Amino acid sequence: MNRHDLALIGFGGVNRALAEIIHTRGDELAAELGFTLRVVAITDLRLGSLMQSDGIDLGVVLRMGAGATFAGFAGGVAVPQNDYVIRSTTADIVVEATFTNPVDGEPAVSHVRAALESGRSVTTTNKGPVALAGAALNRIAADHGVRFEYEGSVMSGTPALRFASEMLPGTRISAVQGILNGTSNYVLGQMETGRTLADAVAEAQALGYAEADPTADIEGSDVQLKVVILANEILGADITTADVERRGISGLTAADLAEAAAGGTRWKLIGTARRDEEGRVIATVEPVALPLTHPLAGISGPTNAVSFDTDLLGTVTVSGPGAGRIETAYALLSDIIAIDAHQRAVAGATR
Amino acid sequence: MNRHDLALIGFGGVNRALAEIIHTRGDELAAELGFTLRVVAITDLRLGSLMQSDGIDLGVVLRMGAGATFAGFAGGVAVPQNDYVIRSTTADIVVEATFTNPVDGEPAVSHVRAALESGRSVTTTNKGPVALAGAALNRIAADHGVRFEYEGSVMSGTPALRFASEMLPGTRISAVQGILNGTSNYVLGQMETGRTLADAVAEAQALGYAEADPTADIEGSDVQLKVVILANEILGADITTADVERRGISGLTAADLAEAAAGGTRWKLIGTARRDEEGRVIATVEPVALPLTHPLAGISGPTNAVSFDTDLLGTVTVSGPGAGRIETAYALLSDIIAIDAHQRAVAGATR
Repeated sequence: MNRHDLALIGFGGVNRALAEIIHTRGDELAAELGFTLRVVAITDLRLGSLMQSDGIDLGVVLRMGAGATFAGFAGGVAVPQNDYVIRSTTADIVVEATFTNPVDGEPAVSHVRAALESGRSVTTTNKGPVALAGAALNRIAADHGVRFEYEGSVMSGTPALRFASEMLPGTRISAVQGILNGTSNYVLGQMETGRTLADAVAEAQALGYAEADPTADIEGSDVQLKVVILANEILGADITTADVERRGISGLTAADLAEAAAGGTRWKLIGTARRDEEGRVIATVEPVALPLTHPLAGISGPTNAVSFDTDLLGTVTVSGPGAGRIETAYALLSDIIAIDAHQRAVAGATR
Repeated sequence: MNRHDLALIGFGGVNRALAEIIHTRGDELAAELGFTLRVVAITDLRLGSLMQSDGIDLGVVLRMGAGATFAGFAGGVAVPQNDYVIRSTTADIVVEATFTNPVDGEPAVSHVRAALESGRSVTTTNKGPVALAGAALNRIAADHGVRFEYEGSVMSGTPALRFASEMLPGTRISAVQGILNGTSNYVLGQMETGRTLADAVAEAQALGYAEADPTADIEGSDVQLKVVILANEILGADITTADVERRGISGLTAADLAEAAAGGTRWKLIGTARRDEEGRVIATVEPVALPLTHPLAGISGPTNAVSFDTDLLGTVTVSGPGAGRIETAYALLSDIIAIDAHQRAVAGATR
């Protein structure tokens, strides 16, 4: 049976959840998918680095106590050596799940580039490398005959990019429109019950939906990065965040939402990428008062959704979770499945 | 470039729309998909039969006047010879889009069986053969090394079956739940504005959503067939319509819907297939008062939707058109794309 060896860059919630899935369900997945998964390297700011080319015992790593590092393991050191591990690991797939700086996408961009340049395929859930350097990184991947996959950069495990490419072949997609930030959607829902923005944000923070600094969620810059990804991937644009006009929800009040409800509409923070009559892609992030019949109007709570306007099929919408440890780990797994399928297709075609 | 030759069984709205797509967009599709499409046979109750192994000129056929038959064409006769055409056509893919009897699925079941037995892959949008004879027909397809594809039997071109198999690999799906009949959903929406069931049905008929006899839509037997398909395909059940408890919407009044709205819920006709704790699949069709936060509560007008409950990803929902000439023809095209992909995978693996 085919096998993929993984290097996990970052061992926070998401990569830990991926390790749990592989540990508890590896055999079942192998039977379904036709390949086995092994983790051969892990690096993490807090834990250090660990490389074992015959496979790390995930049960042991997942049970490590607080304050422990990889220094006690064969092949382990207490120092995080991301670049060294990425370039010297025996893994064929690098799983990038570190934090990312929304301004320059670092350190994730460098991690992805190093992995691709050393001939390894990459999956990431980081928006940064995709939105800020996607075209360049895809070129590097193509030059090295490997894959760069990033389904989780838009709606975690809920398919958006792969939905467009795999479920809508043969159609012409003219626009993509979505609720791409769960925190702001949850906050708007709370404000519909009369809460102030500040109270609703505090509630979202208490529930773990919102970060300590909710600005990126509330002011739309998180959605802005995702709109860049959708525009470039699905509409073939070549835009950056500077090309996406952005307005968040901080200008809305509970009274605005009540007034909308009375008039049969609902305010939603909508990210849109649309091809205009001259073929240019126009991208925006802004609150929109949607009629209740709009496919995005009924999306409640922290759920995300994306609608595709097509010629042959009209509007088709996918909704589901947009965050969560296991849900995001599933995005990584779905990327690994896509990398495997691509490698098989290439192997079949060139044999 | 690879090529597929098609035999169109039935030349009503749906297969005519497929012919239009191939005629107007064949070159563009070939560039995107990597194969060309040619129609080499058409049979139709009204038009007769036409076989031209070097490809029928679709422009000519699509412009035929009222009352004309295929008798005037080389290779054409005024008599519909479905079985003869299916068994003797040079096509490698048979596109079945005749009418189907909901009791025994004929004549579509016989068409599909004859095509598969003669070594041709089949795509159909007919619920009948899939719901009533799906397992048997799939065995015949496997025995003859061909494919039987029927994405359009659930929500026309909106992906349901292929969404489960291609977008959710590695997850365990415990339940599938959907709004699978556009007419009844439109009718419920109209009743929410105070209309009676009878008035709403008349409106749906005027708009072309409902048949002259709307019983199958209103009483849930259309949804019942689709629930059988979802249960057997996605949950691996082996059930028939007799196993699906069914109740339609004719017991609901505008007053019921107003009362639900006042209480923050919405009546929807829901088809469900769910695996219970003992592993049995329970399937039902019934009106359900959904809370407004439910992913199916916001589905408006004639739109269809299906939700998948998964372990790794929670609930994911796809919504879109559930009917329409071109939308349903797109389902056929998506099946043809899947047949081509499968043939390439097999060719690659055995080369």
